[in-house]
Amino acid sequence: MKLKLKKTEGIFGMELENEIGSKVELNATPNIGGELKGFRPMELLAGSLSSCSSIDVLNILNKQKIQPKKFEVDTDAQRRENETPSTFEHIHLVFKVSDEVHEDKFKRAIELSIEKYCSVSKILEPTCEITWEVKIVK
Amino acid sequence: MKLKLKKTEGIFGMELENEIGSKVELNATPNIGGELKGFRPMELLAGSLSSCSSIDVLNILNKQKIQPKKFEVDTDAQRRENETPSTFEHIHLVFKVSDEVHEDKFKRAIELSIEKYCSVSKILEPTCEITWEVKIVK
Repeated sequence: MKLKLKKTEGIFGMELENEIGSKVELNATPNIGGELKGFRPMELLAGSLSSCSSIDVLNILNKQKIQPKKFEVDTDAQRRENETPSTFEHIHLVFKVSDEVHEDKFKRAIELSIEKYCSVSKILEPTCEITWEVKIVK
Repeated sequence: MKLKLKKTEGIFGMELENEIGSKVELNATPNIGGELKGFRPMELLAGSLSSCSSIDVLNILNKQKIQPKKFEVDTDAQRRENETPSTFEHIHLVFKVSDEVHEDKFKRAIELSIEKYCSVSKILEPTCEITWEVKIVK
């Protein structure tokens, strides 16, 4: 896997590009002189957890011939704010799915992802507590 | 830190949004039915390392009144391909900077980031070897 990052405007403006040409803008937090534009690096990391786990869950459901009409994940990530480096202490994920998906099947898919399949979960495991809940929505 | 992820088109199409409304598109690898669109979750994670470390480096240089004309980081990330979860085994970063920055100062800033300040480097440390080199460019 190859990625290119380059500095753009301001002190901390950056653009990340992958091998198929997709791009995402990044910046630092305003308290060190960054601007409220794009993503902060630790947001990408927290987002890699929710998206990696979502792919597992959607893949497991898809194998059961279920493609949910609605699927969302809210992420709430807490950092060790008074430490440097300031790693994640706790990440809580709220998995929401439309009501054609049975709650037990949905929970089982998430459990398999977080405990067994998800690479980002495995990487975070030594330094971060990961918790989750589900919500069945209309 | 709060993030929202929602399923968009296809089986694995997703959109990640942060608190200031920035968005990035995600998808799964084609070999499980994903599409070559946006980013894959593990790309976001590798990109969080290069960008987190870049902010440290640009911050250290900025405190020395140096704002490089050109600054880029190439990332090459190797996963443990035959394992599930498939975590990163090795990430190599090539830091490139324009020649108004002294090579020794640049190396020292990167060293401080990777070994001391960078939160993503700290999170990856137990499971991934991180190496780096510098290139001074015109």
